[in-house]
Amino acid sequence: MVSAAPLNRKDKQIAHHVFFWLKNADSVEDRDKLVAGVKTLSKIPQIKEIHVGIVAGTEKRDVVEASWAVSELMFFNSLEDQAAYQNHPIHLEFIKNHSMLWSKVVVYDIQEV
Amino acid sequence: MVSAAPLNRKDKQIAHHVFFWLKNADSVEDRDKLVAGVKTLSKIPQIKEIHVGIVAGTEKRDVVEASWAVSELMFFNSLEDQAAYQNHPIHLEFIKNHSMLWSKVVVYDIQEV
Repeated sequence: MVSAAPLNRKDKQIAHHVFFWLKNADSVEDRDKLVAGVKTLSKIPQIKEIHVGIVAGTEKRDVVEASWAVSELMFFNSLEDQAAYQNHPIHLEFIKNHSMLWSKVVVYDIQEV
Repeated sequence: MVSAAPLNRKDKQIAHHVFFWLKNADSVEDRDKLVAGVKTLSKIPQIKEIHVGIVAGTEKRDVVEASWAVSELMFFNSLEDQAAYQNHPIHLEFIKNHSMLWSKVVVYDIQEV
């Protein structure tokens, strides 16, 4: 008999990193509305940890992508939890209320190793 | 007199997320060499936390970028720590020993809010 995977293990957790580009790329007001919206997602129980951010003032280098506006990084215990998050009412409400703000979204889903 | 910023505060920390594409895109051996290389970076003292990953088996959606091979996510207390990391000998050694493996690198530098 195989034991159930322990909760909060880090070696196999899923990181879900979303970058948003704004329709009004230079609007601090729209950026801050989107930041506030992303923060509402923290109430979704499947999310272990959430980090919300904006472009950092690091050195400008060719490899650095700095044209986005808002970053949303979450950790989940499993693919199942990530899938449940996608359909959670708070997430759907966030999309309904904020999708008019963004022009592009890029998502990276990462399995920790 | 202004106090020094506390260590380990999370609200202003810097996340540095790097995605690598391999020259030999389908080589699990090269992917695993690069994963092992990225893990050597954990000895750099400015790094508060490091997460190494590969593409997760989440649902394929148009917004999900899944053509990369290895993900390196780090957290720093400050822009200064991130800059010091860039020039740390262990980081330079990592680049020297592994840059032949990758064809493209994309970096996102995030200021948490």
